[in-house]
Amino acid sequence: MASVKSEIRSGAYYDSAVLMQLQRGLLGLPGVLDSGAVMGTPANLELLEQSGLLTNEARQAGANDLLIVVKAESESAAGGALKQVDTLLAKRRSVVSEEFLPKSLETAAQQLPDAGWVLVSVPGRHAAGVARDALNLDLHVFLYSNNVSLEEEIELKKMAQAKGLLVMGPDCGTAIINGVGLGFANRVRRGPIGVVGASGTGTQAVTARIHELGSGISHAIGTGGRDLKSEVGAITAHQALDVLARDSRTQVIVLVSKPPAASVATKLLAAAEACGKPVVVDFIGYPPPARKLGNLYFAATLSGAAEVAVRVMNETAAAELLRPVAGYLRGLFSGGTLAYEAMLGLQAMLSPLYSNSPITNNQQLSDPLKSVANTIVDLGDEVFMVGRLHPMIDNDLRLRRLRQEAADPDVGLILMDVVLGEGAHPDPASELAPAIAEAKGARPLEVVAMVIGTDSDPQNLESQVERLKQAGAVVFRTATEAIDYVARRMSTRPARDGPPVALDAFNRPVAAINVGLESFYASLIGQGAQAVQVDWRPPAGGNEKLAAILARMKKKQ
Amino acid sequence: MASVKSEIRSGAYYDSAVLMQLQRGLLGLPGVLDSGAVMGTPANLELLEQSGLLTNEARQAGANDLLIVVKAESESAAGGALKQVDTLLAKRRSVVSEEFLPKSLETAAQQLPDAGWVLVSVPGRHAAGVARDALNLDLHVFLYSNNVSLEEEIELKKMAQAKGLLVMGPDCGTAIINGVGLGFANRVRRGPIGVVGASGTGTQAVTARIHELGSGISHAIGTGGRDLKSEVGAITAHQALDVLARDSRTQVIVLVSKPPAASVATKLLAAAEACGKPVVVDFIGYPPPARKLGNLYFAATLSGAAEVAVRVMNETAAAELLRPVAGYLRGLFSGGTLAYEAMLGLQAMLSPLYSNSPITNNQQLSDPLKSVANTIVDLGDEVFMVGRLHPMIDNDLRLRRLRQEAADPDVGLILMDVVLGEGAHPDPASELAPAIAEAKGARPLEVVAMVIGTDSDPQNLESQVERLKQAGAVVFRTATEAIDYVARRMSTRPARDGPPVALDAFNRPVAAINVGLESFYASLIGQGAQAVQVDWRPPAGGNEKLAAILARMKKKQ
Repeated sequence: MASVKSEIRSGAYYDSAVLMQLQRGLLGLPGVLDSGAVMGTPANLELLEQSGLLTNEARQAGANDLLIVVKAESESAAGGALKQVDTLLAKRRSVVSEEFLPKSLETAAQQLPDAGWVLVSVPGRHAAGVARDALNLDLHVFLYSNNVSLEEEIELKKMAQAKGLLVMGPDCGTAIINGVGLGFANRVRRGPIGVVGASGTGTQAVTARIHELGSGISHAIGTGGRDLKSEVGAITAHQALDVLARDSRTQVIVLVSKPPAASVATKLLAAAEACGKPVVVDFIGYPPPARKLGNLYFAATLSGAAEVAVRVMNETAAAELLRPVAGYLRGLFSGGTLAYEAMLGLQAMLSPLYSNSPITNNQQLSDPLKSVANTIVDLGDEVFMVGRLHPMIDNDLRLRRLRQEAADPDVGLILMDVVLGEGAHPDPASELAPAIAEAKGARPLEVVAMVIGTDSDPQNLESQVERLKQAGAVVFRTATEAIDYVARRMSTRPARDGPPVALDAFNRPVAAINVGLESFYASLIGQGAQAVQVDWRPPAGGNEKLAAILARMKKKQ
Repeated sequence: MASVKSEIRSGAYYDSAVLMQLQRGLLGLPGVLDSGAVMGTPANLELLEQSGLLTNEARQAGANDLLIVVKAESESAAGGALKQVDTLLAKRRSVVSEEFLPKSLETAAQQLPDAGWVLVSVPGRHAAGVARDALNLDLHVFLYSNNVSLEEEIELKKMAQAKGLLVMGPDCGTAIINGVGLGFANRVRRGPIGVVGASGTGTQAVTARIHELGSGISHAIGTGGRDLKSEVGAITAHQALDVLARDSRTQVIVLVSKPPAASVATKLLAAAEACGKPVVVDFIGYPPPARKLGNLYFAATLSGAAEVAVRVMNETAAAELLRPVAGYLRGLFSGGTLAYEAMLGLQAMLSPLYSNSPITNNQQLSDPLKSVANTIVDLGDEVFMVGRLHPMIDNDLRLRRLRQEAADPDVGLILMDVVLGEGAHPDPASELAPAIAEAKGARPLEVVAMVIGTDSDPQNLESQVERLKQAGAVVFRTATEAIDYVARRMSTRPARDGPPVALDAFNRPVAAINVGLESFYASLIGQGAQAVQVDWRPPAGGNEKLAAILARMKKKQ
């Protein structure tokens, strides 16, 4: 009859690698069927229960307790195994002899004065402190640790930004700096493509695919998965984009992230647009505003992003820079879907953006008759259509709204569709062109029109386009082209926050200090980088009260 | 001093074209500065107010009242203009002599026995009744009218479906049947591309662009903008897809719509996948699951959809059909972004789909330790990571979960990632392959693995792939390929609801009955189609109470 026995060690600190080795060591003992060596979090208790490893005693363990469980063929075998725990812990294999390891980051930095990077993979509750120490030593931080709070992330990133340093992370799995992988990284060719990755395996998938396609990576800079949340404001992504824009070896940039908040996307895409290099954007799961907007290419998948990046290497870099429009956009549409496609394309570059046909709830225009900030109105919406002909037949509603928008001094650009064909107004330009000319005559105002039609349509496509142009409108034949143009006219290039990150650390051979997982140290050495492992222990031996007192004393110094 | 005068005509019925002509007639009278002739809806009252046309009297008008307003140079000029209203209404120009027009749909159908189509553009509250009459005459309906309730739409579409008829609409702007445009339609070349459009101007933009690219349209079938809502269940879109799949002149199909509900998308995409022709999908603003899944191509914009359709004309039609898997999908990921990309790709084909890293709120897995239906788990999530090594280093968590999922008899396919490179487990296949072989040995179960790595990685990519294959896994080198394969294995082809729509009406020259906007009649005749205009009046002269009594009497017949 199998027996399960457990032991709780309160407040003891062991790193995850040690726990894995302990669990495997127990499993190798005679009569042992299964084992567990985990911190007593609710998730871990449930996992033990699923494996039939949860004892009544073990249920009492807290999140800071080490819980050791053994399932064995007999009670004596289980008890015997538990007695081996200390022996197994003492056997802990280490890749580096602990005697010679520096005990602090400061000492490590003295040992390796060329160090530019600190890898932090200690447990989450200690990670921010180590990262802060690294920033105080003017070192970039690769913060692998997870379970770091959002508040700590923001504090660390603002501190780094003010010093021209990078905090990659928390929960940053992957970076490749000057040919050396930090954390998890595939071995890839050096090459002209730079990556900014808010996603670790995303960066791995993109860089591995770029390698496979025969190209290579200049640098891949991780940001951590929360960097593009509105609270953090993509601090690291902006810095990383700026680094790659200035780095002469980087010719194309790939930006990989989960979909960001609208306001974050606007600013980041504006910065990407202004960087002067082709930028392939894969906001995974974000509806792409277009295949291409100016120098921005939107990919749908990770391998797709890699393929586009390799393809555009040889294309002309940036699209022609356009003079930005001062003032708001107002879109006056007769076609609901054209309005919707314009929303979709422009929401990436314009924030806030409102509509009576919104894509997200926060874009809802409260009164369809009154535009606010940047607004796109579908004038064919049901609310306008009671006893009234569709605006594709009767221009009255649109002409009135055009005058209303033109009279608003905050408006800089009016976008409209002109849909030709059977059933539509026989000559829309005869009414729209004079109204456009009048609006443009009164004050500086840009009018952009997308004319949807064919050379067989009854309205004479060519003459419609010609008369709209003569009235001063900028005319395009597809929604895509019109939206591309408007996006580029409406975007405002953000100023850089904080000093630039010096390129020096990216061009020198990598030298790094590792605090945490020894396998990362081994990997650095294996790649030919210089590295020092810190023999890190939690402050006050894991005693949190004492640690808090020590931290306060340190601050007062 | 300008004077504004108004007049209310309660419960009077005039069609929108008549009101536009009246408004323009008033504007042409001496001394008149501006005018309005609208139904007294709140939106229309506000529009009048914005134009300085709202009198105190006019504020009293209700939504069913005709409101006539004149702004003139003097009170006498305003008064004089209002006196001309009846004369102007009598002058109403008609393209057809009213004396010879049939007064009912039945009579019209007798006059034009070849008629296959009825165009309905009467005011919304009367439109469902006319459409119902058309279906009772076994005629397809093009329902241009808006302000038709969702309940009426569902009732009409179910009625049509049972009879093998189409209801295109309500609020359907555009269709092209056998070369003839119904409603708003560009004049385009005949050709091999068929369109299913839940969007009027979307269909126009796509068909116009296809024409411009030198190709052409077989049929463009409208569905109305609400057809893909979950309440309607894409009844018309399914019928239209089925028609185009069977139509020998259609070689490629384009499907244009705003993003549908998940359950609707699943069924519609499964039908599209099963149709045996390339289908270009533009769910405008929906994150594309991939560029290509089987025979489905996902476009990001309207003009993009047209370009893809023209391009794939010459590609091999459908991808190889795969035997569907019986049972649920379980995805066990070490990479969060790979899990997310799998969610993104599979949510189009699999519903419901759950995850601890969901894209939409309704995909949230309540307990990350317990899979439900189709589930994709990110095992690198913070909740699992307290005191535990990442699953890219330590396989223990995944091996336990793999056994758990394999033991669930409802599971048919297990998908996993294997991420190689620096920092990762030195030989993941040594642990994963035996577990896969064991799971597959116990019962029929498919295991699919995406191996992310390069030929330079320390794990030996080739050997990892080989050992996973030997264990019975289907192995791909990119997420995109793995997701494409799983999507095609997991999709279930829906059975057709109701009888097929007969192709006859699509192959004959178009003959149609028009009820409503005379300009649509004129357009049909202009395109060489046979057409009859019905001299439609609202039942009981617009008296709604009387109309309700008449309707009840009619039902009892």
